[in-house]
Amino acid sequence: MSDKNSLLEAFKQTKYQVNGHGARNVQVLKDVFNDLDGQLESEMYGKGKIIEEFQEKMAAILGKDSAVFFPSGTMAQQIALRIWCDHKGIKKVAYHPLSHLEIHEEDGLKELHQIESILMADKNRVIEYEDVRGMEEEVACLLLELPQREIGGQLPEYKTLEAIAAYCKEKGIILHLDGARLFEILPYYEKSAAEICSLFDSVYISFYKGIGGIAGAILAGDEAFTEKSKVWKRRHGGDLISLYPYFLSADYYFERRIGKMKQYYEGAKELAQFYNQCYAVSTKPQVPVSNMFHVHFDAPKEEMEQILTVICRETGIGLSSYVREATNNASFYEVSVGDLYANLPHEQ
Amino acid sequence: MSDKNSLLEAFKQTKYQVNGHGARNVQVLKDVFNDLDGQLESEMYGKGKIIEEFQEKMAAILGKDSAVFFPSGTMAQQIALRIWCDHKGIKKVAYHPLSHLEIHEEDGLKELHQIESILMADKNRVIEYEDVRGMEEEVACLLLELPQREIGGQLPEYKTLEAIAAYCKEKGIILHLDGARLFEILPYYEKSAAEICSLFDSVYISFYKGIGGIAGAILAGDEAFTEKSKVWKRRHGGDLISLYPYFLSADYYFERRIGKMKQYYEGAKELAQFYNQCYAVSTKPQVPVSNMFHVHFDAPKEEMEQILTVICRETGIGLSSYVREATNNASFYEVSVGDLYANLPHEQ
Repeated sequence: MSDKNSLLEAFKQTKYQVNGHGARNVQVLKDVFNDLDGQLESEMYGKGKIIEEFQEKMAAILGKDSAVFFPSGTMAQQIALRIWCDHKGIKKVAYHPLSHLEIHEEDGLKELHQIESILMADKNRVIEYEDVRGMEEEVACLLLELPQREIGGQLPEYKTLEAIAAYCKEKGIILHLDGARLFEILPYYEKSAAEICSLFDSVYISFYKGIGGIAGAILAGDEAFTEKSKVWKRRHGGDLISLYPYFLSADYYFERRIGKMKQYYEGAKELAQFYNQCYAVSTKPQVPVSNMFHVHFDAPKEEMEQILTVICRETGIGLSSYVREATNNASFYEVSVGDLYANLPHEQ
Repeated sequence: MSDKNSLLEAFKQTKYQVNGHGARNVQVLKDVFNDLDGQLESEMYGKGKIIEEFQEKMAAILGKDSAVFFPSGTMAQQIALRIWCDHKGIKKVAYHPLSHLEIHEEDGLKELHQIESILMADKNRVIEYEDVRGMEEEVACLLLELPQREIGGQLPEYKTLEAIAAYCKEKGIILHLDGARLFEILPYYEKSAAEICSLFDSVYISFYKGIGGIAGAILAGDEAFTEKSKVWKRRHGGDLISLYPYFLSADYYFERRIGKMKQYYEGAKELAQFYNQCYAVSTKPQVPVSNMFHVHFDAPKEEMEQILTVICRETGIGLSSYVREATNNASFYEVSVGDLYANLPHEQ
């Protein structure tokens, strides 16, 4: 514990931090609102010019009829799956074993919606076409997370996505996209967001990953779907009188960062190459397909924390503020390349 | 519709508006963050100095062991009732027929938590001791809303509260306070928040009514209760990475307005007296017990909209931006006295 804290402390003192866009501090909000006219009226419970304009903008970008802003992806995705389960009359959905819904949401999907999850594929790889075709259980909906965050941000081939989408359409399985990091994969696939989303019936995107906003999510789909999602948003307690602190920030950072996704992606590939040249270090995926990857070490967490603390203190470069345990006495951490990477002196 | 819009438009043009604290615009947020140091670090998923300090402060004010900040009261209260139902092993709660849970939440309590509501008392009056004593159904929890908003903000006598609390304790019924407007009733009861809350097992308060914040709520109770509420907060999708835009604003406006509750209350009593002197106009309650009341007219909604529009245009005073239909061809609107009332020239 003391080592972990000393790594975090040493990390905070470094001049250069490699990952992300910078500190998650109040300045992130101040930068947005300094520029905004104070007379701009709040939306009221999801209604009003400023929220509707943002939702329409995001719907257009995602190539969907309609979009609804949510305070969180947890809320947006549970609601999406609930709507599709009700629509199909089947209380089962399929997703990856390391889906956010399965490991980070305290079983909200089961506890609040009584929806059963069918875990697809081995947890160390992405869902492939054969997994979908081989699925024995009847499910209302299949959720694909692109990229698959918990395994370093891996992606299937684009033609696999097309094959899965065609199969689901044929079999009447609804296809939902967990696109928390959708914009981050566009440079690799060389597709627009709308092209990718056209394979899916509904899509969720997040604003505090690559976009670097404060919080919040968009859920998009056809009009009947998004109208139902508003009712469920109210039931969940997410239909706040004012969500503008989030969606105005989302819009601000979207405009500033959407054009930099290729830069982040190229940075991630370069950085991964550096890591892979080091002894007992490897990245997953070996060549990143987005701005993110995992760095794995053939050394236990405690040892890596000590090494990283020393690197922080001696070089002024913060590679990571934490290390997580892996199996077989190994360890890893996650890297997300953002604005900070471009500021690094390349003498690492 | 066109009349309603012309009232709203005329209202927005008025020099003096009688109700509330002023426009719900972006300036409300800017005023908070202009004063704050940009280096202040965000909390992370409910953990961190700034959220914990605020929660501890509010717990102390409410006289409870522990408090948790929620994005909304809808979320906080459903969760409170769910925890108490699980605790008692009974999926039933009792509340007023015009409780927020019953009429404004799209049946979230039933749809998400499968909790049945027992509606107490006639909808035109508050819940009295006899209603509680006469309750035939076994419920896990009784929710009291103080003041009862949808009937103009009425209150039972304080001794009634004490009798209900004693009865619930004896019978093992959990007592929860919907204190959305708790601070607004302290001048009438001449009690502290902690004194009132001591009658209840758990309490919810809101930050965008009398306090005039942007959004958000506190749920308070014993440690076991609030710890469970954090798990449910995550399940609901309310455990955002950053809630600071709300709780820092809540704290800012709490400090600026908590000392003015008596001024708002006295203003409401004075304003209600003015209304009651007018022909075919009456307030409910006749003498307010908080900063709020309803104004009832013996005239249909459309006629009142026209009259109010004329008043807006000719006097520059905005009494209300809307009128709601009542039974028997009558109509009403809600008044909440806030900062603006003190700025009025008293020549109305």
